[in-house]
Amino acid sequence: MSKVRVAAFSVSLDGFGAAPRQDLQNPLGVRGTELHQWFFETELFKKMQGQSGGSRGVDNDLAAQSFENVGAWILGRNMFGPVRGSWNDESWKGWWGTNPPYHTPVFVLTHYARAPLAMEGETTFYFVTDGIASALKKAKEAAQGKEVRIGGGVSVIRQYLAAGLIDEMHLAFAPVLLGGGEHLFAGMNFHGLGFAPYKTVMGGNAMHVFIRK
Amino acid sequence: MSKVRVAAFSVSLDGFGAAPRQDLQNPLGVRGTELHQWFFETELFKKMQGQSGGSRGVDNDLAAQSFENVGAWILGRNMFGPVRGSWNDESWKGWWGTNPPYHTPVFVLTHYARAPLAMEGETTFYFVTDGIASALKKAKEAAQGKEVRIGGGVSVIRQYLAAGLIDEMHLAFAPVLLGGGEHLFAGMNFHGLGFAPYKTVMGGNAMHVFIRK
Repeated sequence: MSKVRVAAFSVSLDGFGAAPRQDLQNPLGVRGTELHQWFFETELFKKMQGQSGGSRGVDNDLAAQSFENVGAWILGRNMFGPVRGSWNDESWKGWWGTNPPYHTPVFVLTHYARAPLAMEGETTFYFVTDGIASALKKAKEAAQGKEVRIGGGVSVIRQYLAAGLIDEMHLAFAPVLLGGGEHLFAGMNFHGLGFAPYKTVMGGNAMHVFIRK
Repeated sequence: MSKVRVAAFSVSLDGFGAAPRQDLQNPLGVRGTELHQWFFETELFKKMQGQSGGSRGVDNDLAAQSFENVGAWILGRNMFGPVRGSWNDESWKGWWGTNPPYHTPVFVLTHYARAPLAMEGETTFYFVTDGIASALKKAKEAAQGKEVRIGGGVSVIRQYLAAGLIDEMHLAFAPVLLGGGEHLFAGMNFHGLGFAPYKTVMGGNAMHVFIRK
């Protein structure tokens, strides 16, 4: 059975997993880049951008691990793009250009149907309109024994958490105070859901905590 | 002018600065010891307990720094003890035995008057019934140019934050999910109050973040 995990998911000191006011100019929300700075500075991220340099060490290693053994992804539609409502001309193809960093089937949760979208590098976006359980079933089939990674955003993760469908999470606590955005923990008792930290690794720019049931 | 700071204040991943259900058997609340484990394992804490051993390194160094240059403390009454309401026979003298770890004047916020309580090691508890501004004024006078440390708990810190009276905080983020207790951040926008991290130090068992305006 495929394990379902959240990985390398950035959280601010005050508990926000996404910054407020996402739009085309701010794919991560206003000040969202600060939240992900630990990742942006890594060699892995630079490489994904076609650049050289970047940091090695814990942050880089754990970012790399987050992509290993992943057979399928699940994303919320806000993580896929800034378009709201129907897809209109279907010209939006994600934030990531022609060759997205997934390289697997990616199931995008949405209320609006759209034909599958095959990209370079073996990423295909499938748009799922019949709910989180259906998306997970499809993702597990597609993963062929590998893991399913719930990419986010916060709302999607919280829906899967509330349904008891997540096995493990790797949270990267970033030394940032956002003061607003989407809160990962509010009104949700992770301890009560049975999660406990089992490994903590201090990185150069984030504290990485691995939790599971 | 005395700087006013919070130091070595433990916060859980989910934002709680105190565990729930404090009582005589659980001075730190149920599971509160997990929150402070990073401190309990240090050489400094062991020494304060009359023991040898304990860890050196970042956690120990920053715990030690939190006690340096402190001229007066302010505590909430729940941090002073489990007694609620009036002081009755005044037999309660704090959680810390005959020689508390403060070694300065300590101003305890309470609604119930009580005579000052001189302990061994130059700690004297003064009970302040006329509010946080009065307690801070008294503490600054007593500190004689040294810093005033707001010890906690969460409620007291939040009252001073809301009043704009705290200059600096050293928060120790512990890899613990409490799921309940007193939340440090809920309904309070630290970024909006003007605070930003200016230094982050990774310890063996906590991520130490220093914030100031």
